[in-house]
Order: sequence, then C-alpha cells, then structure tokens
Amino acid sequence: MIVEANTARFDSLALDNGTTLGPVDVAYETYGELNAAKTNAIVVLHAFSGDAHAAGISAETGKPGWWDNMIGPGKAFDTNQYFVICSNVLGGCRGTTGPSSLNPATGCPYAMSFPVITIGDMVRLQKMLIDSFGIRRLLSVSGGSMGGMQALEWAAAYPESVVSAIPIAATTRHSAQQIAFNEVGRQAIMADPDFHEGSYYDKQPPARGLAVARMVGHITYMSDDSMREKFGRRLRGKENFSFGFDVDFEVESYLRYRGSQFVYRFDANSYLYITKAMDYFDLTNGHGTLAAALEKTQARFLVISFSSDWLYPSYQSQELVRALRSRNRDVAYVELQSNYGHDSFLVDVAEQTDLVRGFLASTFEKAQ
Amino acid sequence: MIVEANTARFDSLALDNGTTLGPVDVAYETYGELNAAKTNAIVVLHAFSGDAHAAGISAETGKPGWWDNMIGPGKAFDTNQYFVICSNVLGGCRGTTGPSSLNPATGCPYAMSFPVITIGDMVRLQKMLIDSFGIRRLLSVSGGSMGGMQALEWAAAYPESVVSAIPIAATTRHSAQQIAFNEVGRQAIMADPDFHEGSYYDKQPPARGLAVARMVGHITYMSDDSMREKFGRRLRGKENFSFGFDVDFEVESYLRYRGSQFVYRFDANSYLYITKAMDYFDLTNGHGTLAAALEKTQARFLVISFSSDWLYPSYQSQELVRALRSRNRDVAYVELQSNYGHDSFLVDVAEQTDLVRGFLASTFEKAQ
Repeated sequence: MIVEANTARFDSLALDNGTTLGPVDVAYETYGELNAAKTNAIVVLHAFSGDAHAAGISAETGKPGWWDNMIGPGKAFDTNQYFVICSNVLGGCRGTTGPSSLNPATGCPYAMSFPVITIGDMVRLQKMLIDSFGIRRLLSVSGGSMGGMQALEWAAAYPESVVSAIPIAATTRHSAQQIAFNEVGRQAIMADPDFHEGSYYDKQPPARGLAVARMVGHITYMSDDSMREKFGRRLRGKENFSFGFDVDFEVESYLRYRGSQFVYRFDANSYLYITKAMDYFDLTNGHGTLAAALEKTQARFLVISFSSDWLYPSYQSQELVRALRSRNRDVAYVELQSNYGHDSFLVDVAEQTDLVRGFLASTFEKAQ
Repeated sequence: MIVEANTARFDSLALDNGTTLGPVDVAYETYGELNAAKTNAIVVLHAFSGDAHAAGISAETGKPGWWDNMIGPGKAFDTNQYFVICSNVLGGCRGTTGPSSLNPATGCPYAMSFPVITIGDMVRLQKMLIDSFGIRRLLSVSGGSMGGMQALEWAAAYPESVVSAIPIAATTRHSAQQIAFNEVGRQAIMADPDFHEGSYYDKQPPARGLAVARMVGHITYMSDDSMREKFGRRLRGKENFSFGFDVDFEVESYLRYRGSQFVYRFDANSYLYITKAMDYFDLTNGHGTLAAALEKTQARFLVISFSSDWLYPSYQSQELVRALRSRNRDVAYVELQSNYGHDSFLVDVAEQTDLVRGFLASTFEKAQ
C-alpha cells in the first residue's frame, strides 16, 4: 500500500493564547475509503515525534508508517471497512505549519516567534480538516501517548462529533514528573550554543542539545525490563572495559546513535513547542474536576494502558476511567501486560489489535 | 558539633586499570572516639555527589553533614559509642584527589588525563586510610546508593576487615537503565562547548551541560508521588500559563535552580569519572555469579531498600539478599515504605534509624 502525502491549507486558526495564526498548512494521509454516508471515518493521532505517515509505504521515503502494524486491510483499524485519517500536528515539522515554517509576514521561518500552542489548538485544526471532508461525526478518535491526549481533547471539545474515543497510554494531564522530563529536554536544547534563541535555520541546528533531549526520551519510553532484555550490561564490540569515555556498553551506543540521528527528522523548536503543549494539557482546566470536564462527552471510550509504562502509568488512565464512570459513560478499560514500557502501544500490538477491532466493530454497528 | 576536615596523603595507589596514581590525598572527617581496642570503627560511604562531611557542622562552611540526621550522639550511628569515619571518594572534587587536582608531573590539573577509576579503587584507598589509623577490623561499613555499592565492595574485597555491612538503596551492578541515565548526564556535559575535552579549569566550566545532567539526576532521585506532593502542577508566581518558554511550573523552577547551582559545588570531570566508576561496578566481575562473588564475605549484612525507589529498585537489593542467603550468610533485609524515592535514605530516616541502631548494637555485642 503506497501512500501519498496531502496538504490542506486554512486561512486562519484561532489559538488558545488569544491570537490567530494563518495561513496554516496541514499535512495528512488517508487510508481506506470514506463511505457515502460518511460514517466510517476514524482520526488517528500521532505521539510526540510522530507524523502524518501512520500506515502503508510512503511514496516519498519508502518507509512504513509509525502504526502500520495497526492500520491496514484486516488490521485493528481495518481499512477495508474504515476511512482512516492522520495529520501532522500543529507546531510540528513534518508538513504542518510549525516554528520551522515560513512566516508570510516576514518571509523567514517563525522560529521562536511562533505562538505557543496547546493540544486544544492542535485538535481545533484537525477539526477544520475533518470539516473540509464534510465529515460530521467521527466513528473514532485514537492514538497513543500525546495522541491519546488529543483523542481526549476531541471527545471533550467536540462531543457531538465523536462517536468513540480510544486513548492509549495517555493521561488527562501531565504530572510533575512528566513536566520535569520535558523540561530537561527543553533545557538541553536551549543550552546548546547552536540554539541561537531558536533562529538557527540558516545555520547549524542545535544537534547536540537535541540529541541529549532525545536520549532522555528514549529511556522514558522503554522499561527497566525491556532495557535489560535489549542491552543488559553487554559491551559494545569489546571484551573488556575501555577505561575511557568512548562507548563501553551497548546501551550507550544505542542512545548516542538514536540521539544523533534525531536531528535529521525533527526540528528542535518543534521539540520545545510540542512538549510545552503537552505540559499545558489538563482536561480539568476551566472545569474544576475531571468528571466535570467530561460532563458533555457523548463518546464511548476504550481506555488502554500498559503494565510496564512508567512514563504514563496505568493509574493515570484509571483516573480517567473513574471520572467517566462517575458520569455513567460507556467506558471499557484494559491494562495490557507488556514489558515494553511506554513504547508498548507501538510495538506490542497483538492484544491491542483484538481490543480495538472488537470495540470499533460494535461501535460501528450501534452507530448505523 | 563543629567538625574539622582532615587530609591524609599516600604516596601511591594501585588502580584496577593496571596503572598507579600518586601521590593521593584523601579528605576525611571523623565523629566520636576510637576505643582502645579499635573495635568500634564504622566507615560511612557517601553517594555520588556527597563528600567527607557526613555529620556535624562544618568548621569551614557552617553547614550540616549530608547524613547528620543519622550520625551523632544518640543517633543511628551513635557517636557516643562508635567512631565514624567518612572520606571523599577517589575521583571526587571535595578534597580527595580527582581530575581537578594538580598532576605533580605537569603542575596542571589532571583533567581527562586522570585515570578512569573504579569502585574497587575508591575502596582500596579507603582501606589505606583505615590501615593508617591502625584499625584492623571495621565494625561496619555503610552508605546509600553509591555508598552502598562501596560497602558491598568492602565486604567482598576485604572480608577479614569487615564485621558488618549495611548497603542501603544500592545494587550489586548497574542495570542498563542506570547506565543509560548516567550516560545522558555525561553526554550533556561533553556536549557543552565549554567542556573543552575536560580542560576547562582556567576557563568557564561546562555549567549548562552539568546543569542538565543534574536535572536528570534530581528526577531519578525523587518518586512520581513525591514530585506530585512537592510540586504537582502548581505554577510559579503566576495564575496563568505564560505562553512562552520562561518558567511556568514550580517543578521547572526547582530543576533549573538546582541544576544551575550544582556547578558551584561539583566538578564536571568528577561527574564523568564517578558515574563511569558506578557503571563499571559489577560484583560478579571475575566470579561468574553473585553468590560466588560473595563466597568469601564474613560480614553480617543489613540490606535496606525503599518501596518508591525506582532508580535502585528493591528487586536489586533482593537479588543481593538471595545470593547471600544461598551462601548461608547472616543477612537481614527490610524494604521500607517511603514516598521519597531514591532520596529516602537521606530524608526518611525514622525507621532506618531503628534498624541501623539495633543491628549495630547486636553486631558490636557479638564482636566483643
């Protein structure tokens, strides 16, 4: 399944900070066919460093999508039945307008003059894209990590447009620890002398700071167990310690490599803006309680968390489930046993597939 | 209790990398009185960023020691009964020879020409200090975190000199995750352009890199729970988000401050060398199994871990306990319930005090 990237343009987008941004481009891909009644559309939402290429093989890069094991003919999000849409988030660097985009007022990249955005802003832009397809109601909104946060925002902000929501390995608001890890990444980037207050687009990017930020990220995405299985204390291409500061352990080699490669696919300013949006995210904002924030939702929910995910621990999904139940919402919750930590939603998809397939089938049947 | 720092000098120290270092200074403090039979000496071992000032009020700085709540008259390490010694580790930057010390061969700081050292090297130097006091057997060796790793090294390397060992919140070898967090800190320091391959002593130190490293450290020392209690999502001196990249949250302010202050008391090269020593530490090295590594130990053990410590999780202490029991060693193990994460051994000392006091009293009685 070769897929082409598309771009939609909107004249302006109202932002939570009170300003307006425009024009705004949205990069997106679609998989499957929209039915005549437009009742089979599903929005899939990517995590922090993801992009619009969720499934199939990219015509441009030849690479599979980040959730290709979940989206396609006969898969969890079965493209024989459903029309799946995925767009790059606002503030991103993979085709949707973000800090690396040209500001039409100046002809230069926005850099740090880009407005600080929120998860609400990201979803508002996605809503405009969905409206442009003439889709009134989404059969489902789903994603893992920050994708799950967007799914929750969709259900709360556009209750009449969301038939079901599947937030996976997500939270209703970032904890102090989650904010802290993001702040470390931001400080690493801003400490890099190549950062130049974000105006590095005609120069070297802050590659070393971005690499350190990414290394921290990778540790938090894995579990203690999965790191032990994958690396243990194995040495890298040697039998004894180097007694120096070159790579000794496999895990050091892995982190250095992943960190150094990240700069080729991700913009440091997008790192700052998107992590900030995640930290600001709090469904209870303006509502007092989580239950009140979910008062108007009409969706059915399937909430999934993973036993070894210590970055978005199960108790955070369970808070969501309790709040939904307290308002008598239709909610199913499963904590899947997996060793892969936060990354589980991307890699350990067998049980997740069964859950999602069944939930979508019953939702589609009820909605007809 | 005002305490003075002391320094001992040794002509040379044999190192695990096969070379010899000399002369070597050791900064140390003592509390209480050594009895005539020299049977009441306890070595207390500091954690990664600690120093020789474990208890009392420093004559130099006016500050209390890092374990002042555990060491003193009537406290867990009761200085009315015991003679307590604490020295700064080899490779440190608080009086003991380390990379910031002058290399007598060149008249310049060693910087990165300092040899890569091990926990074994640290303990070998401590043994020379203890020998210089004429102490043949230590009533106990104890410390938290890296201090606990040194206590284990003492018991394994000098079995006839150690009557008891109290490793707290420690491990017998660093896991991939523990190595990974250390590697992030090292990469943050080495990515700082002020690092200059470690030769920064006549210039600006790599303060920003060291700050990022320290921020990561602080997150790993606390628990998700303790961060929620201490910071939650509270904003710092404002009622609404800044929609910018200045500090929004209390937790950001705390981490930035702690990170930025660290450079005034810690040397970045010591950060590299000491974390490397921790990563190399593996009691099983050269023995095959942990049980074999502990085969020759003669000490009684009190092993303590903390329920919320995710950096040195309880299962790591339990591996040690199982190996000791498999060799029929006298070992008591307690997992203390505490919310403070890895920092618990420094801050939540009520139960720890009872455990240590009772264990030392019975050990002292048996040893007479």
